Amino acid sequence: GETLYVGQYLVERLAQLGVTKMFGVPGDFNLGFLDFVEDHPKIDWVGNCNELNAAYAADGYARVHDGKLGVLTTTFGVGELSAMNGIAGAFSEHVPVLHIVGVPSTGQQKAKPMLHHTLGDGRFDAYYKVAQEITISQATLTSKENAAAEIDRVITDCLVLARPVYLMLPTDLAYERIPSARLKTPLNTQPPENDPDVENFVLDEIVKLVDEAQNDVIILVDACAIRHGVKNEVKELYERTGYPVYAAPMGKTAVDESYERYGGIYVGSISHDAIKEKVENAKLILSIGALKSDFNTGNFTYHIPVTRTVEFHSDHTRVQFAGFPGIGMKRLLPKLTQRLQPFKEGAVGLEVGKYIPEIPKEDTDEITQTYLWPRVGKFFKSNDVIVAETGTSSFGILDIPLPAGATFLSQILWGSIGWTVGSTLGAAYAAQDRGLGRTILFIGDGSLQLTVQELSVMIHRGLKPIIFVLNNSGYTIERYLHGMDRKYNDINNWRWTKLLETFGGEEGKTVKSYQVRTKQELSDLLDDQTFDSAEVIQLVEMIMPQKDAPRALKVQAELSGKSNRYAAEILTETVRLK
Amino acid sequence: GETLYVGQYLVERLAQLGVTKMFGVPGDFNLGFLDFVEDHPKIDWVGNCNELNAAYAADGYARVHDGKLGVLTTTFGVGELSAMNGIAGAFSEHVPVLHIVGVPSTGQQKAKPMLHHTLGDGRFDAYYKVAQEITISQATLTSKENAAAEIDRVITDCLVLARPVYLMLPTDLAYERIPSARLKTPLNTQPPENDPDVENFVLDEIVKLVDEAQNDVIILVDACAIRHGVKNEVKELYERTGYPVYAAPMGKTAVDESYERYGGIYVGSISHDAIKEKVENAKLILSIGALKSDFNTGNFTYHIPVTRTVEFHSDHTRVQFAGFPGIGMKRLLPKLTQRLQPFKEGAVGLEVGKYIPEIPKEDTDEITQTYLWPRVGKFFKSNDVIVAETGTSSFGILDIPLPAGATFLSQILWGSIGWTVGSTLGAAYAAQDRGLGRTILFIGDGSLQLTVQELSVMIHRGLKPIIFVLNNSGYTIERYLHGMDRKYNDINNWRWTKLLETFGGEEGKTVKSYQVRTKQELSDLLDDQTFDSAEVIQLVEMIMPQKDAPRALKVQAELSGKSNRYAAEILTETVRLK
Ligand SMILES: Cc1ncc(C[n+]2csc(CCOP(=O)(O)OP(=O)(O)O)c2C)c(N)n1
Ligand SMILES: Cc1ncc(C[n+]2csc(CCOP(=O)(O)OP(=O)(O)O)c2C)c(N)n1
Ligand SMILES: [Mg+2]
Ligand SMILES: [Mg+2]
Repeated sequence: GETLYVGQYLVERLAQLGVTKMFGVPGDFNLGFLDFVEDHPKIDWVGNCNELNAAYAADGYARVHDGKLGVLTTTFGVGELSAMNGIAGAFSEHVPVLHIVGVPSTGQQKAKPMLHHTLGDGRFDAYYKVAQEITISQATLTSKENAAAEIDRVITDCLVLARPVYLMLPTDLAYERIPSARLKTPLNTQPPENDPDVENFVLDEIVKLVDEAQNDVIILVDACAIRHGVKNEVKELYERTGYPVYAAPMGKTAVDESYERYGGIYVGSISHDAIKEKVENAKLILSIGALKSDFNTGNFTYHIPVTRTVEFHSDHTRVQFAGFPGIGMKRLLPKLTQRLQPFKEGAVGLEVGKYIPEIPKEDTDEITQTYLWPRVGKFFKSNDVIVAETGTSSFGILDIPLPAGATFLSQILWGSIGWTVGSTLGAAYAAQDRGLGRTILFIGDGSLQLTVQELSVMIHRGLKPIIFVLNNSGYTIERYLHGMDRKYNDINNWRWTKLLETFGGEEGKTVKSYQVRTKQELSDLLDDQTFDSAEVIQLVEMIMPQKDAPRALKVQAELSGKSNRYAAEILTETVRLK
Repeated sequence: GETLYVGQYLVERLAQLGVTKMFGVPGDFNLGFLDFVEDHPKIDWVGNCNELNAAYAADGYARVHDGKLGVLTTTFGVGELSAMNGIAGAFSEHVPVLHIVGVPSTGQQKAKPMLHHTLGDGRFDAYYKVAQEITISQATLTSKENAAAEIDRVITDCLVLARPVYLMLPTDLAYERIPSARLKTPLNTQPPENDPDVENFVLDEIVKLVDEAQNDVIILVDACAIRHGVKNEVKELYERTGYPVYAAPMGKTAVDESYERYGGIYVGSISHDAIKEKVENAKLILSIGALKSDFNTGNFTYHIPVTRTVEFHSDHTRVQFAGFPGIGMKRLLPKLTQRLQPFKEGAVGLEVGKYIPEIPKEDTDEITQTYLWPRVGKFFKSNDVIVAETGTSSFGILDIPLPAGATFLSQILWGSIGWTVGSTLGAAYAAQDRGLGRTILFIGDGSLQLTVQELSVMIHRGLKPIIFVLNNSGYTIERYLHGMDRKYNDINNWRWTKLLETFGGEEGKTVKSYQVRTKQELSDLLDDQTFDSAEVIQLVEMIMPQKDAPRALKVQAELSGKSNRYAAEILTETVRLK
């Protein structure tokens, strides 16, 4: 029958799954494979400036590409290890990323010569062992007999489990020929069916609780609703039942924030009173896709007893104290929606707690955090993709409801600064594929320094994100956690408005850069129609006060200070060794 | 007795060992510890733009600081994993780097809450397991009782074994008080004594072979002679015996290259004939600190049989086929020198093969590789620190003998591009401490894009390296390995001469940038006294032909193509799947 190269098989599988971009950096162990990528009509090679940025890009691409995987290719050792933090972040935050690594030939892996990019001691499996700690599934191709099956296995795991996977592709194997017949069967990436008996039992239990709650039910949506692909199922549920719906920070935009019965973001003690009260007093909380990390829960301050909670997850369900392994939400939710529809009449009577911050009147001209977020809130349009970096940005933006169809990206559990730059690149591409709106990034001056070079890829690829740089002279979020006036929280100031030009743009033509120092300047820029239409990549440096932070960050810092404080802070003076 | 905090103990130990700089990036799990660093009178905190660059900086610092360790501090998960490739490189190339990671408190590590920077599944030991693969020794501090001993253990391993080590410092433990008495005993970082009986036997064996060789003996010096601190012992050996001495690429500048009986670089088949002949025909080769990696040996083309070789290593010796574990060169070499001194009279008669490339007369004005390296060779001064990035730079510079006291840095085994930028930062600091000359970097346009932001730290810290950027429109070294005209080997061109200004310098004042397009322009610049004196940081963009490579690279590409080639290259056409 027909045959093709193993490397082609891999690329072809990705194309079948709708992958349009592959990120990464070439290296001599992957160059041969990249020929197949470059020659493929449907997949575009996006060369990144470095591998960490490539991992971030694949992650951002997958997040916005709802249900498609992000892919990066790196080279043995030096490349793959550079990407580690990005891959680990995808693991932590449930993002399906395939990491393909070009590795020495199968012969070299047996003979173990002291090749470049090795540790020099013959351990050719060391990076594989590293990958085992931060990916959900791994394969090292060793023979053409099972290469296709192994490729299919890791790709399937990647999508079904929504976690990163690792694939070692030896130089010689990429060029072994195998039958192409297997490609005719598409991969099944749907979660398995639930056991019908258990599922029915669970449904009965939930309906009983809903009944007992006498319409005092709310829905709380979190990260895994997005990552495990149940946004539509959740929408059906809240629309057909009419129950008020709230989101955790990591679930922001899982629910359309313009929906009239959407109440806002719930973050335990950090929540606004109106929201906190409604959520915590509900008789029953249907919690969907919860990921209860410190920053996602107001430092573990949920005041919702287990007895009032049903938790829906990708691979299990929990009704009060009872766990039901294997009962996944993708199959369960539609059935639940059907069972709960009859309750709608009562449910819609429930009032939705809501808090929408207003643009404050302040004495100062400075661009404060309290001003910034409500103001940019008015700038957003439907279908915008909005990315917020860890720091004052990720905290500040939470309260601002985003328009219909908006997608929000942030890394609230993993929290690796610099992530948004690569991630914005990937997100912008996915937004393009999906016909979404503008891609808008908010990033601190500190964070941008980690991964800044990836702006050049955006420029050269003609992507048009708007990048708001919060120039507040350093690591403000950290000042609030520890060392308000410490030098280690300072950074080196850059000429931010020269970045795009330096990276190859034509200022005023292919790129535009702005600096704003006052509320008025910012507001005028946001009102400018040309700016608004985002026809070229734009960078806005906003000069902001150094020690200003959004309310949510201040409270969070308070809370985590308590659980994580340094003994020395309790002492009145630090005793120094003489 | 007197007490101090665990964090202070750690900083104090480093200060005792002569560490003057600590690199890294703050994060909430290390901020408390950084207070001790910032407050310490002898150690300076150098905040890097990102963690990979910090690891590279610590590596470069250690390499130039002969026998001192490089230190970086990062934060749990996001920070430490970002530094991985840098740490692995230090492992591969035998560089003593201490990686301190601020981690959650001991209580949190037991309770395992879903903290930010965790993988979200309670595995608090995952990063430790990762570190085990790429460091020689690890410690996670768990109680104040053994904290000091554990700190001492990993620091000692770091220096004695010349490899990176990993230290987890929990937030609470950094602030536990412990007795300071232990600090009064300095750490013993000398390698252990050799067993005298075995050592004598080995000496006798070597002297016998030398005798039989009838003065036809040469000395070949490699990486580990530098890393395991025997440069002085080696110098004594070659000066007192008079044997011709050669170096492998990774051993470049282990021997003063201005020494009259230094013959140049031996790289197997890639060597110049004059050198190759002398080395391979010698009756006996005293090989010191060999690290026989592919690029260090001309792709494993040493033509020196084991029967004519004595190998000296940090922890063992090999005489022909006989191995002597535990017989380390630091102790052995001085004794050998004494025993071999009597041979000097005969040895000095031996002629030294040498090859010194001349500046060629060429038809073209373009700055070619054959022109560049001999030309800059004339620009170097004694005690300069010269750093060459993987790419055409690392291959091109090999043939050029460097002046007396020069230090050469390159990453020939690990070969992670971008490494030189961070590493130049660390090297420049170490050079400052040691009163060395200018720090001069050669880096390709592709490589600089990976880690470019670290230039800003050099600018703001007032360091004054000279940075030569080889702008040859992409990944030229890779073109020679595979895909000469492939798009994946192209990069995005930047306005290189605007970089320093963008990162905060005052062009023409605190920073200077130049672009040269012809031999004449380059030559004039190199002759300029102000440029030569390197009073501010300077960047020189050199426009060079895209497909030009140094001779050594062309031959290496030839050789490695053979062992590592892609099947497809043998085929006349690539069959595509329809
Ligand atoms: C890779 C990585 N390194 C270090 C940290 C620790 N960290 C968290 S936030 C932050 C400072 C962010 O500063 P900036 O981007 O300027 O934000 P803002 O000032 O608006 O808070 C740092 C260093 C991290 N989260 N990730
Ligand atoms: C971290 C890392 N990623 C990828 C590679 C693969 N690689 C080796 S050399 C090279 C290209 C270097 O290009 P450049 O710096 O422009 O050098 P030149 O053109 O002078 O050869 C690449 C991508 C690597 N060695 N390390
Ligand atoms: Mg900031
Ligand atoms: Mg280049």
